Amino acid sequence: MPILNKDMTLCISLAARPSNIGTRFHNYLYDLLDLNYVYKAFAPADLAQAIMGVRGLPIRGCAVSMPYKEDVIALVDRLDPSAEAIHSVNTIVNDDGVLTAYNTDYLAISRLLRDHHVPASWSVLLRGSGGMAKAVAAALRDAGFTDVTIVARNEAAGRALADLYDFNWQPVQGENTADLLLNVTPLGMTGEHETVQAFTDPAIAAARTVFDVVALPAETPLITAARAAGKPVITGAEVIAIQAEEQFVLYTGVRPTPEQVREASEFSRA
Amino acid sequence: MPILNKDMTLCISLAARPSNIGTRFHNYLYDLLDLNYVYKAFAPADLAQAIMGVRGLPIRGCAVSMPYKEDVIALVDRLDPSAEAIHSVNTIVNDDGVLTAYNTDYLAISRLLRDHHVPASWSVLLRGSGGMAKAVAAALRDAGFTDVTIVARNEAAGRALADLYDFNWQPVQGENTADLLLNVTPLGMTGEHETVQAFTDPAIAAARTVFDVVALPAETPLITAARAAGKPVITGAEVIAIQAEEQFVLYTGVRPTPEQVREASEFSRA
Repeated sequence: MPILNKDMTLCISLAARPSNIGTRFHNYLYDLLDLNYVYKAFAPADLAQAIMGVRGLPIRGCAVSMPYKEDVIALVDRLDPSAEAIHSVNTIVNDDGVLTAYNTDYLAISRLLRDHHVPASWSVLLRGSGGMAKAVAAALRDAGFTDVTIVARNEAAGRALADLYDFNWQPVQGENTADLLLNVTPLGMTGEHETVQAFTDPAIAAARTVFDVVALPAETPLITAARAAGKPVITGAEVIAIQAEEQFVLYTGVRPTPEQVREASEFSRA
Repeated sequence: MPILNKDMTLCISLAARPSNIGTRFHNYLYDLLDLNYVYKAFAPADLAQAIMGVRGLPIRGCAVSMPYKEDVIALVDRLDPSAEAIHSVNTIVNDDGVLTAYNTDYLAISRLLRDHHVPASWSVLLRGSGGMAKAVAAALRDAGFTDVTIVARNEAAGRALADLYDFNWQPVQGENTADLLLNVTPLGMTGEHETVQAFTDPAIAAARTVFDVVALPAETPLITAARAAGKPVITGAEVIAIQAEEQFVLYTGVRPTPEQVREASEFSRA
């Protein structure tokens, strides 16, 4: 029987349409690591009042999802470089009333490029120009990548993102190939685009690693084709797990083992 | 394993020094009645911001304890008559952003007088003049009692409370007797006054019912002496259980059975 005691630390998430993934991931690890924490998702009635509640109750940590990632910036005290780099917040940490905002998507992309040994000398085709594409482009730039081409039909967003980091832009993939293919569009995601493969077969054949940020499903048409072609892949499930792990570390000060993160991640998606 | 899901409704308490009693009472009943609720106690960093959090997150219900019972009045939208009567709040209910404040101590005293068949024609000695004495005096007045004597060493508070309801005041019990003896001081409570019997043996002998609001322990020297004298008693444990039951009903719309309340109350104090 789950009887919460008064000394438990509360962490929450704020999203217009909360999922159960973060709730299950964090609570699973709290339990596994015997931490006196509890995690609860909210669809806030009012963002500014919810953030005041984070300060006033107090709440230790707060994940921020669509559509609050930019609006919340005005309500915190400090921006970590991870959030400042892309003007987008997905995590708030409350240290005795001082709210610091982070972007652990940015941190996760940076860490995955490192963990999967993707060198900064590689050429990159980055498909997409939305909020997550900003996190990915910033992570590439900050890791030292210079040969990056943004592929985006939205010319204004694509050009703006490319200009920000001195990358290239083109509206469609065409004949281009690159060492790293990186999809940050909804192509391949469960729903209307689920059968679309975000890069062509020849591009996959020419690539050295294929990275798809789409997490649902983790096995997108792009990832399936890349595996079939014998290419190393990085999946959106890894992004979600690592960004959640970084949140977990920021909230608790405890770093779970890779095996514990894998377990929690599987549980959260079950 | 306690995995909170995103659709759970949160209720909380705000107190400078939270106990686990409310947390255990409410969570026990949520579980027993299969309600998708969870309850968590907080020691707020800032009362006004905490109440904004109640609105903004949103939080369905909020218990209010010392020292916030009066300060919180300025932060809510509506006062129920139970809170207005004594200018003291112990419960806030959030209906789509509209916060209504109640005092379920007042409601519990009223209900216990009724349930234990204490007629308004009885004479009453009420010992005490603090916040809870205000709730008790208001409940007596509103139930129709007129022959009430406030016994309180604090002359200013005692006289003010007596004048408010056209009751009498005297500084010490002396030779007085009454049909109902009602203790609302800390006399008999665990701590420095735990061996003190709040009314004299002759007064107990002359009484028809003895009511002690002290809840820890429920078996105070007064209650023990009254039981030994064969008198019907009403204990502070009943007050706590019923005020918590009334909170539970306000938050959930569900009234537990007396047996369920008894079980939850025992669990909460274990």
